[in-house]
Amino acid sequence: MWRPRVRNIRMTVSYDGTAYNGFQTQPGNLRTIQDQLEQAIEQLTGERLKITASGRTDAGVHARGQVFNFTTESLIPIERWCMALNGGLAKDIVVRDARIVPMEFHSRRSAKRKTYRYTVRCGRNPDVFKRHMEFHHPKSLDIEAMREGLRYIVGEHDFSSFCSARTTKTSFVRTVYEAKLICDPYEEELGSYAFHIVLTGSGFLYNMVRIIVGTLLQVGEGKRPSSDIGAVLEAKSRRRAGPTAMAHGLMLWEVFYEDEAPGP
Amino acid sequence: MWRPRVRNIRMTVSYDGTAYNGFQTQPGNLRTIQDQLEQAIEQLTGERLKITASGRTDAGVHARGQVFNFTTESLIPIERWCMALNGGLAKDIVVRDARIVPMEFHSRRSAKRKTYRYTVRCGRNPDVFKRHMEFHHPKSLDIEAMREGLRYIVGEHDFSSFCSARTTKTSFVRTVYEAKLICDPYEEELGSYAFHIVLTGSGFLYNMVRIIVGTLLQVGEGKRPSSDIGAVLEAKSRRRAGPTAMAHGLMLWEVFYEDEAPGP
Repeated sequence: MWRPRVRNIRMTVSYDGTAYNGFQTQPGNLRTIQDQLEQAIEQLTGERLKITASGRTDAGVHARGQVFNFTTESLIPIERWCMALNGGLAKDIVVRDARIVPMEFHSRRSAKRKTYRYTVRCGRNPDVFKRHMEFHHPKSLDIEAMREGLRYIVGEHDFSSFCSARTTKTSFVRTVYEAKLICDPYEEELGSYAFHIVLTGSGFLYNMVRIIVGTLLQVGEGKRPSSDIGAVLEAKSRRRAGPTAMAHGLMLWEVFYEDEAPGP
Repeated sequence: MWRPRVRNIRMTVSYDGTAYNGFQTQPGNLRTIQDQLEQAIEQLTGERLKITASGRTDAGVHARGQVFNFTTESLIPIERWCMALNGGLAKDIVVRDARIVPMEFHSRRSAKRKTYRYTVRCGRNPDVFKRHMEFHHPKSLDIEAMREGLRYIVGEHDFSSFCSARTTKTSFVRTVYEAKLICDPYEEELGSYAFHIVLTGSGFLYNMVRIIVGTLLQVGEGKRPSSDIGAVLEAKSRRRAGPTAMAHGLMLWEVFYEDEAPGP
């Protein structure tokens, strides 16, 4: 008996999250990235299907390399998918890679590591062309103190303190493999410079990167000593950490799978 | 008798032109950068005045360093102006410098040189975060042929061929001091790279940069030899040149005044 050949397709997508209510489909009429992608796939194949992503991103958060997968009976050759989908998508979503993967591949469960990047512009003026992607902090910050604070984050920890109380998770232990702060050069004309907090970990709790950044900014402002980051971790209490940093500075940078992850 | 002290203030402004119908005030209810700036100044000082810019920019065209000036009786200290105006402006317009200049300074008439930059992204995928600022050209281009073509542009020429027929100018002679093409590195993940055509000249006719770029792209596509740029110049006819390149790739980069201009 003939059976349609089902394929599991994995895609990498970049999006500017500014105009969306996050990645995941929401109740009501909220615009989400997932809906846009599923609609574009339906337009192309006629199949009404659900995609699985490596994880959700909040409203206003961007992705350079979000990964999702779905199974399809469509016979469209794999090399045609990107251009065909992009033709049906708004310009703030770009599918940049499509490949056939084994049926057992699952974008969330198969993920080994993720990298997030948070960008702050420090100094007098914002960069008007990056305003959707950089959190502007006019007052100067103690970068070295922030770097020092980041060292407490690295390793396997219970990150309860850096997790939104609205989480549904029960285990708060995650491993952060790398935590760095990279400074771009000072831009004379703007009187400001951008810096990036880049975290790579086994996984991240709800709002974890944004709460870490919000707390680190207090370290940079001199409101807390660097060592407070360690104390906050140990307290296992969201109330001990700083505020959740603004969404628009955050970008899901890359998701790593088996055989792709760089060494710890 | 007491007379108010009138000052001439010169400002440098960056803007993302995406949401505007160009710099200059238009008849009807069109949103323009000039209107936004004049409204912000009125809000701050109570003065209803007209600003003078170095020149207009078309709908969708951006500026990194547009310059304008105006005279005011306001007593607000000069170092306060930037932050005060930015507080009243939308986030896609940022005043980055304010200084007091001699009364005879005139943003347009005193300008000695201007630099424009046009950005093309060549290859498979656009960069979603720069989509408003890069013209995407999926097919590959002969960069060396375009560089060769740019050499004909340098010098004092009658640029009639590279001027919109809708101009009101009567002299078409301008000097281009420098014309270069700068390539950014190829970005593996996007399968594309950006390059910038940077022109510095005594002044530019209506649509001049965009028509030069539109014609150069035809050289890059192999539709014209590089030497055609010279032939088009000599023809002094708009019809001999290529199409006007899309507005969103263009940025007014910098305006130079006496004692500021780099040597030719």
